[in-house]
Amino acid sequence: MGGDYAPEEPVKGAIDAVLDNPKVKVFLVGIREQIERELKKYQYPKEQIEVIPATEVIATAEPPVEAIRTKKDSSIVLGLTLVKEKKADAFVSAGNSGAVLAGGTMIVRRLKGIHRAPFAPLIPTAKGPAILLDSGANVDARSAHLVQFAHLGSIYMESVLGRKNPTVGLVNIGAEDEKGNALTKETFPLLKKTKGINFIGNLEAREIPKGGAEVIVAEAFVGNVILKMYEGVGSVMLQTIKSGLMSSFKSKIGALLSKSALKKSLKQFDVTEYGGAPLLGLRGLVVKAHGSAKAKEFRNTILQCITFKEQNINGKIQKYLEAEKAVEKEAREAGQIDHK
Amino acid sequence: MGGDYAPEEPVKGAIDAVLDNPKVKVFLVGIREQIERELKKYQYPKEQIEVIPATEVIATAEPPVEAIRTKKDSSIVLGLTLVKEKKADAFVSAGNSGAVLAGGTMIVRRLKGIHRAPFAPLIPTAKGPAILLDSGANVDARSAHLVQFAHLGSIYMESVLGRKNPTVGLVNIGAEDEKGNALTKETFPLLKKTKGINFIGNLEAREIPKGGAEVIVAEAFVGNVILKMYEGVGSVMLQTIKSGLMSSFKSKIGALLSKSALKKSLKQFDVTEYGGAPLLGLRGLVVKAHGSAKAKEFRNTILQCITFKEQNINGKIQKYLEAEKAVEKEAREAGQIDHK
Repeated sequence: MGGDYAPEEPVKGAIDAVLDNPKVKVFLVGIREQIERELKKYQYPKEQIEVIPATEVIATAEPPVEAIRTKKDSSIVLGLTLVKEKKADAFVSAGNSGAVLAGGTMIVRRLKGIHRAPFAPLIPTAKGPAILLDSGANVDARSAHLVQFAHLGSIYMESVLGRKNPTVGLVNIGAEDEKGNALTKETFPLLKKTKGINFIGNLEAREIPKGGAEVIVAEAFVGNVILKMYEGVGSVMLQTIKSGLMSSFKSKIGALLSKSALKKSLKQFDVTEYGGAPLLGLRGLVVKAHGSAKAKEFRNTILQCITFKEQNINGKIQKYLEAEKAVEKEAREAGQIDHK
Repeated sequence: MGGDYAPEEPVKGAIDAVLDNPKVKVFLVGIREQIERELKKYQYPKEQIEVIPATEVIATAEPPVEAIRTKKDSSIVLGLTLVKEKKADAFVSAGNSGAVLAGGTMIVRRLKGIHRAPFAPLIPTAKGPAILLDSGANVDARSAHLVQFAHLGSIYMESVLGRKNPTVGLVNIGAEDEKGNALTKETFPLLKKTKGINFIGNLEAREIPKGGAEVIVAEAFVGNVILKMYEGVGSVMLQTIKSGLMSSFKSKIGALLSKSALKKSLKQFDVTEYGGAPLLGLRGLVVKAHGSAKAKEFRNTILQCITFKEQNINGKIQKYLEAEKAVEKEAREAGQIDHK
């Protein structure tokens, strides 16, 4: 029931996903009559879609924690509970981000050893998609959290996108090692010495769209600004180009001739191609789709969940957490660190 | 001597500025022979340009504070000293940003009452230029600093760009009043109650390119990311569009026909049109041009300095500081606050 185009677009996206993949089963959680009215428009294998009725709706501006606590019969709470109870592998929502985040942590819960669960969307770059984490879940995070984000992102890029030993960059205001604010100055040496990731150093924001790193690590406030600047600059530039092309007769003819080539080359900057933003490090998969998501994004997000499961991402995350724990134990025994 | 194209481009920019405005006098500070070799290429009124010889150069990656302390005969130290001694009204450099910042604070010094001097460049938006401060001078700033930035930016936009009662937005991860990290949550109510600015609330980064506010207030790390995302997304999209247009014979013809219209409409996103980033709140004007600045940007930056002087920006800033002091004094006397 979440997002700007519910229930039409989520339902259509679910239909597209089950038609695309016979192995997937989608539970559509929400107001039964509204969902069933939409479902009637399509032909699809009935056993692949099931409606789970919910009587409450969490609105966009509602205070998240309060909403999760009180609206027990909302689509977000019921959907997350399906994941908690292992009846579903993943939960997808385009609704209230704060509620998805709070509910994910409160209901599905973090894996043991995970400090914070970051939102980790794929973002377009000139060299293909990169993962950005944290894009907004945990503001004012600490350096140890950022180090975990680097590991989570590396596991995701390696398993879901097949990037071997993906490059990890720390977003900073300069490329030199000693640059930054208190947080990045503290995080840099930790990333440098942590094993199992391919840390390439500080990354200035201008290098992100150019493909400067495959795993982009940032504090959530900064990550959120990166994501939204992408959207903002992209849409304003496209608007400017469009009105430029429509400004004279000559340029209109030009636009007509170059349209299909332009469309094709700009497609790589279409965020909806990449699906939603997973909340990594929970005991099940929770994915936040854009509020403005349409059927294509819902379909891609559902298919992304299948890869997540098939690649056993959470198994790999748990393996990393065990290794981390072993390293910490060893260090504690050697009296080297007094952790946290 | 600073920037990627010194001394050719700064000299050419100075020539263009004096030819454009008979009232301006430019001191070119640097290696005498190199500057004079460039000057010989041009015809210009000799009394409007004077060479100040400097024997040392501060390199891009040098530690700033150390460089300012030890290289007393560098162009940055000598140029800033001209401003300190009131022999010049403004200093313009495309050199080491950290050195310009450290030198500005150490040599020219802050106005009494200014907590921090922010870099404050104009950035392009769909509704014309906006001012972004702080774009990188003072990381880990406090809420009281951000409130001053709002005032400094408002004075600049009103005086230099003629925007009456310019709108002020606080960069945040959500538009609702209570959103944010510790810093923005503390800053929001202060901005709301401060007099003399037109605070319109939180501003999501995606609204910046759309022209969501005329004065954009952000902590320096965030401001720097905004500025660099602008550059990065802009250049990658233009590159993508260009290669898209060159991908087929048909699209090449289309590109030829639409080129001039496109160029014109994209000009508003050309950062060099707006000159450099002033460091506001010092006892004289210090402006940092882009490292990649060419003659046009140097010329525009010099002309921007004239407006700064003619509009008596520093007089207006001082008036605001006096008003702020009076408010604080009143509050202290009333026992309401224990300042800082």
